[in-house]
Amino acid sequence: MTQHLDPVDLAQALIAVPSVSPATGAVFDVLEAALTPLGFTVERFIDGIEPDGPVENLLAVRAGKGPAHFGLAGHLDVVPPGIGWTSDAFAPEIRGDLLYGRGAVDMKGAIAAFVAAAAATPVEAGTISLIITGDEEGPAIFGTRALIEHMSARGVKPDMILVGEPTSVDRLGDMVKIGRRGSVNIWIDVPGMQGHVAYPHLADNPIPKLVAILAAIDAVSLDAGTDWFQPSNIEFTDIEVGNGATNVIPASARARLSIRFNDRHRGADLVAMVERLAHDVEPRAKVVGKISGEAFLTPPGDLSELIAEAIHAETDIRPEMSTTGGTSDARFLHALCPVVEFGLTNATMHKLDEAVAVADLHRLTAIYRGILMRALLD
Amino acid sequence: MTQHLDPVDLAQALIAVPSVSPATGAVFDVLEAALTPLGFTVERFIDGIEPDGPVENLLAVRAGKGPAHFGLAGHLDVVPPGIGWTSDAFAPEIRGDLLYGRGAVDMKGAIAAFVAAAAATPVEAGTISLIITGDEEGPAIFGTRALIEHMSARGVKPDMILVGEPTSVDRLGDMVKIGRRGSVNIWIDVPGMQGHVAYPHLADNPIPKLVAILAAIDAVSLDAGTDWFQPSNIEFTDIEVGNGATNVIPASARARLSIRFNDRHRGADLVAMVERLAHDVEPRAKVVGKISGEAFLTPPGDLSELIAEAIHAETDIRPEMSTTGGTSDARFLHALCPVVEFGLTNATMHKLDEAVAVADLHRLTAIYRGILMRALLD
Ligand SMILES: [Zn+2]
Ligand SMILES: [Zn+2]
Repeated sequence: MTQHLDPVDLAQALIAVPSVSPATGAVFDVLEAALTPLGFTVERFIDGIEPDGPVENLLAVRAGKGPAHFGLAGHLDVVPPGIGWTSDAFAPEIRGDLLYGRGAVDMKGAIAAFVAAAAATPVEAGTISLIITGDEEGPAIFGTRALIEHMSARGVKPDMILVGEPTSVDRLGDMVKIGRRGSVNIWIDVPGMQGHVAYPHLADNPIPKLVAILAAIDAVSLDAGTDWFQPSNIEFTDIEVGNGATNVIPASARARLSIRFNDRHRGADLVAMVERLAHDVEPRAKVVGKISGEAFLTPPGDLSELIAEAIHAETDIRPEMSTTGGTSDARFLHALCPVVEFGLTNATMHKLDEAVAVADLHRLTAIYRGILMRALLD
Repeated sequence: MTQHLDPVDLAQALIAVPSVSPATGAVFDVLEAALTPLGFTVERFIDGIEPDGPVENLLAVRAGKGPAHFGLAGHLDVVPPGIGWTSDAFAPEIRGDLLYGRGAVDMKGAIAAFVAAAAATPVEAGTISLIITGDEEGPAIFGTRALIEHMSARGVKPDMILVGEPTSVDRLGDMVKIGRRGSVNIWIDVPGMQGHVAYPHLADNPIPKLVAILAAIDAVSLDAGTDWFQPSNIEFTDIEVGNGATNVIPASARARLSIRFNDRHRGADLVAMVERLAHDVEPRAKVVGKISGEAFLTPPGDLSELIAEAIHAETDIRPEMSTTGGTSDARFLHALCPVVEFGLTNATMHKLDEAVAVADLHRLTAIYRGILMRALLD
């Protein structure tokens, strides 16, 4: 038994409800109303307070007959529309082959395809869950992290998860993400003692120490890349002394760096390494790290293979398995089970006149259904 | 034939005329009125326009019978008084042993001692000139430099010059300056190309290049000092990138350094050295130097010896021959002939409640007279 649900209608209904991050309320009502008739049990909860919340999260589970459990993950929040749209960002409009509206590709369109694909998958198959947050684009403190806790408390445990982020580049199906690099920002603050340049013995110039620390960091080669990741990379992003006086030795000097790292490293180890190099030069240097996300990899295998087969069946494309780009909520979900990301083309995401090809919404639905069928029936 | 002139009276008369740098007019009238009765031919001229001028300069020459020609150099301008004086900075006041007022030690007191010493020196001795500018404390563009040109045009050429800056530290006579270090500020600007930290191959980060340039400069040892100078010294005084975004590779990076150098070096060579080190790393780096003054030395010899003798005769002190401290107009005058600096104690110069011991004004007059007698009669 399957039902028919038009992903274009649902995408339009979702786009029509403004849901700039963090999102709660009406946009979740629309999704819940679509899921309930399909046999999903829907749980919604709101977490967090301002400024990082409140955030609404939704967990929908349709228990299947088969033993396998497939999770479909995504977000209903969107980035602010900005000024200059041809039509209202929250009034979905089809012009020519394209459906315009904020969230069309990132990622209300993909969530509509999730639901339509689930509708077209017989309940004889295994269990399907939708793991949908209202804060992926924002600080993500009370989003997917809270959902994972909630799932753990409910004993909801998928065997594999697909995140519907727009991973396709030129054509739907050309790229699947099997991992993401980690990201950490690190601040180094070197104290000194202010003084006059004519009397350096009475001062302690922090700049040569900062230079020595940065030179030591610059000499570090983290790795040469792996089969699936490009080499980890350190970029200095700022140095600041703020001394306007040409005859004054400054009291302190600061630098900031950004490391994008592969799965050979963990953020905390990188911060510790920078701290060690800094303390080799100046034990009083203060090093602070802020980890945006750890690297993760779902090595090519059963999950990526069945996704590639489903894509190929609908598009004749063999997707590239990539680990490029920024972070996504896959960094959290990876703790549960193997995670892969696949969705619409990303050319217009976060831009004015964000748009999805109507045909792609139907094709993506077919691919997602193909994935569910392969994962839950075979 | 000598005349008596009280240096305390003249110092008070000079202090009573406000003359914050650049100075013109009334304060020079006071000096001219004191010099003319002593047989000096006084020439005054005004040079420069705002903001570095107008600046008044005064050249007074008393031709003597002997062949030697001794120059006494100094300035009538003063630094701004600031707020918080016990008595009016421009209303000279004797309280206890001290005469208070802006310029008391730096250096209207010394100029009063110049005049009183000249009055007490017989015309049978050689020629005496007073070389007095109205801008030593300011940009000094139209001050002593203009005086030197004027002297050259007039054929006025001293055999030796004493600059009356307050060189004494704890007691009058404990320090004479026989040279000064040179000073140059250098700016390094490294261009790059802005980009996103996740895509470093599309950007060109200027910070590692700046770090490499500064590390190369930091490794330079200019010299180990000389018999008369401490080692030349490089101090980094600022680094500025100004990039607020943690995920952005900046478009450029700047640093500034200050070099205080002894007579082994010339400013232009140091700028060229920094430029060479910068271009070794990044040929597009822009290096700009601004030389405040070249190093100079009047090696200990006849001039410093006769000054030391005159000091010892009046104070029982053997002065230290030093090259420490900042720049003075001696850097310009050194082009004419041997130059040495000696004057009052400098503890209160440029400070609130600047003050000179009344006894020191008389003692300094006696020392200056002793110098003139030794230089012009022996
Ligand atoms: Zn997204
Ligand atoms: Zn002075």
